This record gives sequence, C-alpha cells and structure tokens, in this order.
Amino acid sequence: MLENGSHFFEGVEKLLEIWFEESSNGDDDLRNISRSDWENVLSNVNCQIISTSKNDIIDAFVLSESSMFVSKRRWILKTCGTTTPLKCLGQLLKLAEANGYNVVADLFYSRKNFTRPEAQITPHQGFTEEVTYLDSIFPNGRSYCLGSMNLECWYLYTFSRSDIKITPQLISDEKNVDSDPDQTIEILMQDLDPETMSIFYKNKFNDANGATVKSGIDTILPTMHIDDFLFDPCGYSMNGINDKGEYMTIHITPENQFSYVSFETNVALSNYRKLINQVINTFKPGKFIVTIFANKCSLAYETMKELEVEYSQGSHWKRTDMQCCNFPSYNLLFAQYSHSEKTGDNL
Amino acid sequence: MLENGSHFFEGVEKLLEIWFEESSNGDDDLRNISRSDWENVLSNVNCQIISTSKNDIIDAFVLSESSMFVSKRRWILKTCGTTTPLKCLGQLLKLAEANGYNVVADLFYSRKNFTRPEAQITPHQGFTEEVTYLDSIFPNGRSYCLGSMNLECWYLYTFSRSDIKITPQLISDEKNVDSDPDQTIEILMQDLDPETMSIFYKNKFNDANGATVKSGIDTILPTMHIDDFLFDPCGYSMNGINDKGEYMTIHITPENQFSYVSFETNVALSNYRKLINQVINTFKPGKFIVTIFANKCSLAYETMKELEVEYSQGSHWKRTDMQCCNFPSYNLLFAQYSHSEKTGDNL
Repeated sequence: MLENGSHFFEGVEKLLEIWFEESSNGDDDLRNISRSDWENVLSNVNCQIISTSKNDIIDAFVLSESSMFVSKRRWILKTCGTTTPLKCLGQLLKLAEANGYNVVADLFYSRKNFTRPEAQITPHQGFTEEVTYLDSIFPNGRSYCLGSMNLECWYLYTFSRSDIKITPQLISDEKNVDSDPDQTIEILMQDLDPETMSIFYKNKFNDANGATVKSGIDTILPTMHIDDFLFDPCGYSMNGINDKGEYMTIHITPENQFSYVSFETNVALSNYRKLINQVINTFKPGKFIVTIFANKCSLAYETMKELEVEYSQGSHWKRTDMQCCNFPSYNLLFAQYSHSEKTGDNL
Repeated sequence: MLENGSHFFEGVEKLLEIWFEESSNGDDDLRNISRSDWENVLSNVNCQIISTSKNDIIDAFVLSESSMFVSKRRWILKTCGTTTPLKCLGQLLKLAEANGYNVVADLFYSRKNFTRPEAQITPHQGFTEEVTYLDSIFPNGRSYCLGSMNLECWYLYTFSRSDIKITPQLISDEKNVDSDPDQTIEILMQDLDPETMSIFYKNKFNDANGATVKSGIDTILPTMHIDDFLFDPCGYSMNGINDKGEYMTIHITPENQFSYVSFETNVALSNYRKLINQVINTFKPGKFIVTIFANKCSLAYETMKELEVEYSQGSHWKRTDMQCCNFPSYNLLFAQYSHSEKTGDNL
C-alpha cells in the first residue's frame, strides 16, 4: 500500500463474471469445489479468503481484496488493489471442467479506469494488455470502452457463446432466446463525504456490524443476510445474500485522498432509480458511475429506457455521460454523474 | 498508393465538422473565405480542390481526397488516404476569426478504424495521438470509441461549448436548449459487391455522370444537385446540395481487396430506415456501420429509438453491435451490421 513513498490503495475493482452452460448432470455444481481448491485459485490472484457465508443457492466469500460468489453454474470474482484476477482463469476453467462444466456460456470482465494504472501488475497494465490476455483464451470476445477515453471511463470485455452458435435469424428475434432472467447493477463512487467515510475506520467501531448499522448499509436491501468485515486500520467489505440466491456486495476505501466505494447487486427490480438514490444518499459521493446489465428475460430490460430519460431531471446531479449498448442477449446502460457543487462545472 | 510493394488505398475517411457560435454581425460568413485561402488550408491536409458547386446556402468542394462543405457558420472536411486534416485546424480557426467567428460552439472529429493504421502520418498514427493533438486545442473535449475496440470500431472526439457554459439545471431540462435542428447520418460500407464496384472505373465510363446514373446514385436523394468526379484509373466522389442547403456526399474506393464506400447526408428525415435500405441496395456491402447524430430540435431525435429496435428484424443482416450515446445537446446512434451469408457467422 506504499507507492512511491505516499500511501495509496487502488479501490477500483476488476470484476469477472462467468456463466457456464447448463450441464446434463443435475448434480454438477461449482459449489462442490473445495475450499483448498479455491485457495489455490485465489493465490494466483494474490488474495485470501477471510470470511464465508452461504445458503441453499449461493456461497459468498469476503476476500482480503473484495469478494467472490459461487452458485451452481455462475462464478463472480471482484478484486481491488493490485490483484491479478485474469491469472487464475486457466485454473478456474480446469476446476469447472472437473466439476461438469466445460463450456463457458458468457463471460464479462469489467473495470473502471484505474486511479494509478502504473501501479498495476501484468497482465493488468492497461486494458489492451488485459484484452490480449483474454483473447488468447476467448478468441471471439469483444472489448468496449464506455465513457470518455481521455477522462473517465469503464472498460468491458465480453464473450458470449450465443455470438457464435445462434443463427442471425434467431438473434434478430431476440425475445425468444431462452435463458434465466439476469441483471446486475453496479454503482462506482468517488470523492466521498469524509464524515461518512470516517465510519469505516477500525478506531471507530470494534466490529464491522457497528459500521454497517451506523452507515445504514443494512437498510439498503433489508432482506440480505450480511457478512461484513472492517479492516485495520480502515476499509470495509460486505457480502449480502438472500433466500432467492440474490447477492449484494459493498467495498469501501475510505481514505480522503483516494476514497472509493463500490455497490453491486443482482436483485431483480423493475426500476433501479430508488435503489440508486438510496445508495447515493448513504455514501454521498462527489461523482459516480452506474452500470446496469439486463438480459431479455429480466424485469429491468424494458425499464432501462425509462431510467435513461428520468434520472437527472431536476436534481443537482449533472449527467456527464450516458451510453446504452445492445448485445446479443444483454442490454447495458452506462451513466456517469457528478455533483454540480463539488465539481464546480456550473460556471 | 503503393505500400510495401502492394497496391493499397485507405478509403476510410477522417471527418471533421465545426460549428461556430452565431456572430452579432449578420454579414459574417465562412463563405467569404477566398479560394486561395482554402487552398492554403488544404495544403496542410495534403489535398487539392478539383471541383466546386454552390447555391445560396452552401458551398461544396470535391477534393482530390473526398470533400469539403462550407456554409455560414459550419465547416465540414472529410478526407481519406493518408491526409492530415487535424494539421489545418490552427489555420482554419484563424481564418474563421478573421471572418467574424472566434468561438467554436461544437466540434466533431470521427473516423472508423483504419484498414492499415501503420500507413498513416502524424498526428493520425492512432486515436490516442489524434486525441492528444485535439486536447491541445480544445482542453474540454471528450473522446469515445464505439463498437469493439479489438475488432471494428468508430472513434469520436467531441467538444461542445455547452458542456462548459450551460448550468446543470439547463442540461437536465434538455428540450429547452435553443439551437438549429441538425442531424447527420453516415453509412460506412466495406466488402462491396465487385460487379457494382466495376462501375466506378474510368475504362467503363468517360464521365462521372455515366457512373452516377448506372449505379442509381442519382435516385437516392433526387432533389440533390450533383457534382461528381470519376478518378483515373478508378474511384468516385460526389457532392450533392439542395435548395434547403442540405448536402449528401459519397466516396468510393472500388478495388476488390480493400473496397470501401461512404455515404453521408444531413437531410432531415423522421425515419432513416428507408434511406439506409436504399443505400445498402445500391452498393451491396458485406458489412457496414451506421452512425446517426441528431440534436434535440431534430426530427430524427425521437425516432432513433425506433430504428434501434426495428432494424435487423427479419432481415439477412446480423447486427453485431449497437450503441446509443446521450451527449448534452446531441444523441448518437451507432450500429454495425454484417451480411450473414458473406461472413459465415451462422455456424
């Protein structure tokens, strides 16, 4: 955490989500992978498991750098700092194969631009390097940059088996694609309110639960069973899982010079505006990015258009960028906001 | 045109469009700039004027590499090959100032990824270099990449004075922004039908008009007054202008190994689907990109959403990418299509 003599920690996470094709054997399950196998996988990433929680549908791991979620055929790894999540891909694919999953249906790798890209370790020293690495494993993947490349942006690499196997006629007739409803919203916040961030220091609370309750994190999605962790001297992580197998996860880098908070969940809502406002009011960022993925079966699919129009009306937030992408089986909404008073853009 | 011993020509154009703020003096007009001044400007770009046409509202120039359009307060330069349009910016801004226009209201610089980027001349040796050059003149500009960065994409750099001067409240209440209706559609086509392309060889027609009529270019927008040019031994350019001051322009690189056709117009339509189909049926590409810009006052602004949904339904075209961007005063739609039979993607 000491870079060039000054204290710095890269809160911006690298997020990897993989869906495997359904297997014909009903007993196949990624949750059959043992803890020691996961520890081996994560050693390539340079992080460790520090807490676990689970229910009938999903296993959640708090890591030394962020989180991992494992369900029957979906694997999510989110890691910050100078971790190297792409380096565990080969091992992960072997473990999945040994557990009945030998075909990747969808892969998403995404991240915001790093605050200090020069501090990252290969193969994460730039998006081009990351894409080259992923292309060597998924030769039909596509890479995107949303937002302003020369200011702030969010990178996405996506591979979908449906890009290859579905005929053009089927792709046009998109509503008939048969898959589970799926949606993910991420809110990536920076320049956060120092008073709110002061909650996430070990000298304030002995256990993480105090910080969870004081900040109001427990009220954002009340049905979630929370596994939280407060780092020494500061920093906070939480995973939440509910009976439907939905998850939420929050990671906080509270230091004023490089404050960063990420919120992510896959709860199914028909409109995310209320949730976004609650998260923003909890953490009080100076600027934030929202990304929403929704597939054709998701409740959120049609309402993303509404959000696109509604959000920013009559508020003190300035929407600096807004993009929408239609992929073969997912829609993606990307929006960037900054607080007019803090940024001083309203000259 | 000889690169590494093999014949090659970069048909992909660099497109620069600048709108100046209205001046208080009604006599100010970019069309007062003399031909010799334009020749000086274009010498920095490495191209020459080969034909001109004009009406009461717009001057159109066919260039040795593509086209230039000049109206009262708008300037458009589109050049292909290894031309260097950014190098004329300083001189252009001085000439505009001398003619009463000293404030740039909007600037758009865009291009598809080059077929052979390594053949380009500085400052066009990559989008990063182009952005650095533009940032040195327009410090609040934003750069974007639409489409797949690792496959095919379209780059955009945009500067808007309204990003700086309009308060956030006004930006949110977008419909009230007062400006002229404006829209631009571009269709960038590759892998074209060789029989159609054979029309654009000098050995087939003595004058360009033969090629214009044979190909059906004259029927695409029949109200346009056409100024066309057939290059020796091959290649074709046309400018069309109508009484409303609207323009269209087509540029054709017909060689089979690197065929490329671009179509562009600012005609105001409430739906571009018919026009897109007519252009596609005229040139028969294997793949193409469509970009549509429309500001809040444009007829096209609301209907872009329809196009987004409708196009690709029940056709043999596979839509490989679709993105929509909301800028403070413009919407942008980007879509990429390839022909299923030619690409063989339907495995």
